[in-house]
Formats: sequence, structure tokens, C-alpha cells
Amino acid sequence: RMRAGGAVTGVVAELGQSRGIKASGLKLRFCTNETQATRGKFVAKLQRLGFNILVNEVSAPAPAACHILKERNLRPHLLVHDDLVPEFDQLDKANPNCVVIGDAADNFSYKNLNEAFRVLIGLENPILISLGRGRYYKETDGLKLDVGVYMKALEYACDVQAEVVGKPAKMFFQSALAEMDVEPQQAIMIGDDIVNDVGGAQQCGMRALQVRTGKYRPCDEQHPEVKADGYVNNLAEAVDIIVKQLHK
Amino acid sequence: RMRAGGAVTGVVAELGQSRGIKASGLKLRFCTNETQATRGKFVAKLQRLGFNILVNEVSAPAPAACHILKERNLRPHLLVHDDLVPEFDQLDKANPNCVVIGDAADNFSYKNLNEAFRVLIGLENPILISLGRGRYYKETDGLKLDVGVYMKALEYACDVQAEVVGKPAKMFFQSALAEMDVEPQQAIMIGDDIVNDVGGAQQCGMRALQVRTGKYRPCDEQHPEVKADGYVNNLAEAVDIIVKQLHK
Repeated sequence: RMRAGGAVTGVVAELGQSRGIKASGLKLRFCTNETQATRGKFVAKLQRLGFNILVNEVSAPAPAACHILKERNLRPHLLVHDDLVPEFDQLDKANPNCVVIGDAADNFSYKNLNEAFRVLIGLENPILISLGRGRYYKETDGLKLDVGVYMKALEYACDVQAEVVGKPAKMFFQSALAEMDVEPQQAIMIGDDIVNDVGGAQQCGMRALQVRTGKYRPCDEQHPEVKADGYVNNLAEAVDIIVKQLHK
Repeated sequence: RMRAGGAVTGVVAELGQSRGIKASGLKLRFCTNETQATRGKFVAKLQRLGFNILVNEVSAPAPAACHILKERNLRPHLLVHDDLVPEFDQLDKANPNCVVIGDAADNFSYKNLNEAFRVLIGLENPILISLGRGRYYKETDGLKLDVGVYMKALEYACDVQAEVVGKPAKMFFQSALAEMDVEPQQAIMIGDDIVNDVGGAQQCGMRALQVRTGKYRPCDEQHPEVKADGYVNNLAEAVDIIVKQLHK
């Protein structure tokens, strides 16, 4: 899968660079929109690939959504991937008063979407929380529809606007910064997605570099709305530049 | 099913009224957004209910779409209900250069929506034709998502705008009028859907009555955008009024 956004995609490709950052004394955080597995599974996979990463260094939409749900006393009806369900274990899901939608893949059957719709349309104040707004992603066997497409479907069906958790939502970046105890102006985002990574981080007051790997396309450099603060050919180059700046 | 729009819903409920219209010498046409069966099947069902109706008196989205497809040399990839497929028998469907979406119900699987998406995203000039823009309809076992919801999903995935065939599209009403050889000012639409029946017909220059049956809701009479030319409690009342006007 090439969807796991931002820094993570790059780092996996150029293993060891995160050590460069960590050794420099800089704080590091991985922001992903991955919603097909728990953070635990996601990190275990990266660790098996030899990657130096811990669960509490990762920001992902599902734990962020759980935080919101608890704060607002919301009981979710889940339309998510089977492997993501354990992230919501701690929450009361009886008599739901909101719908949480993630990248459910094959779980996006007519029956399941209809069920989520009926919960939503039956609520006096319908709340739809979407774990991302992506259109599609690439797997080895081709393009796959992402959560944003089904979010739009439910938005239209119920005439509501979803609350998006994950990149490019401002609050998602703000939480990541708060957990690092770093101000936006002190932080830099590195990612391959011009809108979700670069645009989202900039909205939040951070600078952002786009890596020319992963889902990068040359036309991104002429994007009508988002202009990156810089372009790098790969994550290694980004780390070099950042560490050199640091030693000046 | 309560979705089959406009006059048809009403007429089925108040059987025999169409005879009143036919006997008066007025031309009559049934406009439906039904896309879960061929016109043939649809009419046969009404005939079994004792209803005086012929296939060539019915305007429906699938035959209208076929007309458009032939005119523009389009080869459709179909995402429709199994029972609707025969309507497209005459068309070349190899190497598709557009997608046609109808109320596919259980055929709206992740796999099938993904397939339609891949066809569309692979086209240099992506054309999406939607057999309606309805949000949901009511069946005996509850509310069901309608074609418009999946149209919105594909529109967002591919950043395209669908061409909608069926009510409330202007062209759909214009074709029905042309087949009757009647000018819009000479025609009156009777339907239960304030937007698709009443609003659509008015956009086309016709007058339109809303019947207070079927999907009618009292708040329709304060609709922010559409104001019916009149309200009737049922189709029988509409026929009475029209026939009386005629004899003045």
C-alpha cells in the first residue's frame, strides 16, 4: 500500500534516516492517515522492516477520533476496516449517537453503508466523523477507493457535513505538535501529499517540504492552492538539509 | 417501493383515474425515475394491478440514456441493477468510454464501485451518466440509499460532474413533451416529489401540481426553492380539476 501518507512512506523507503533525525536531538513524530490497522499493528510491521519507531511516536486518525468521542460523550456506530475495530474497544457502542467512517475497503458493502446511513438519518443531530478525506490510493493490484468517497456519499444522503479527523485537519496537526511540546513555527512537516501533508501543515502554521517520492507528481509543483516551502528528491535529502541548518 | 416518482405512484394508488384523463382526450405520459427494472417489467407489473398503461407511454431514465449514448457513440460500463441490464442490450459495451450508474442496490459493492471508478479515472475525458440523483427511498423494510449517493461518490473520486438523466433534468421532460407533441405551456405535471417532479417540470416551462400522497411532506409547501402551481389531496382530485377546466 502506498497510501500511508507523509513522512512514513518516505522513511520506509530510505531506512535509517529517522535515526539521523533522532541522533540530532530533534523531536520526531510520524503522522499517518492509515485506518486499515491499529497503530500497534502498523508499528509492528515497520519494526519488522527494521524501522526504529514506537507506537507513541505515531499520530493516526483512529486514536484521535477516540479522544474526540470520549470528550463529547459520543457512542459510535463504526463503518471501518475489521482490523481497526480494536482501537475503539474502550468505547461504549450501544445505542449509537454518531457514525465513524474509515477506510473500510470490502466492508463498504451496500448493506453496511445503508446501515450507517440509517443510524445517521435517524439522529436528531446527525454527527458523521470521517477518518480522512482521501479519494483513492494505490495498491499492487491497482487503484482503490478511499474513505473520502464514502464520506461524500453519506454527506449527500443525509445533507450533513462530516468532521474530518486526520490530515489535512488542523486539529490533527495541532495535537501532534502538542504531544511533542513544539510550536508550529519550530516544526517542519515532510510529506509526499501536496494537499494533505504540505497544505494541512501550512494551514497550521508549520513549514512543509514535499518529497519527490511516493504519490508526488510533477504537476504538484504548480498546484493552484498549495505551494510547498521546498522540494527534496527524497527524505534523506530533507534530513541532510534540516540537520545542516541546525549546525549553522 | 415508494420511490417510483411522480404521477405513477399516485395513479397506482387511485386506479382508474388515468382512464378519466384518457377519456377526456388529453394526452398522458408517465414519467418515472425507476431504474431497478426494464420499462417492460415495470409496465407488466402495473398491468397486473389492472392499470391501463402501455410501454410507449412511459418515460424512464434507462431508455433516455440509451438514446444519448447512441447519439454520442458512447460505450457504457454499466453499474446498474441486474434487472435493468436488458435495456442496454443494443449497445456496444466493449472497451467502455463512459460509466452509466443506476440504482444498483446490492450491486453497489466495494468491488463494483471500484471497477466503475477505475474505468472512469482511466479515461482522458471521463463521462459519468447517472440515472437520477435521488438520495434515498423507502421500502417495506426501511430506507435505502439511492443512485445519487453513489453518483456523488464517483464525482468526488474522479473530480467530475455527472450528467443526470431522469427527473428533474430538463432534457428528460423535454423528451417526454416532444414524444407527446405538446408545448410546455400546454402541459401539466402531477407528482409527489417537490424537487424532482414539480421543480423539474417548472424549470422546463410546465405548470406542476403536487399531490399530498406518497413522499409528500407538509413542509414541502414551504420549500425554499420550489413553489408548486397548486396542491391536490390525491390524483383523483387533480384529474377532476383538469377535466373541469377543459370543459369550461
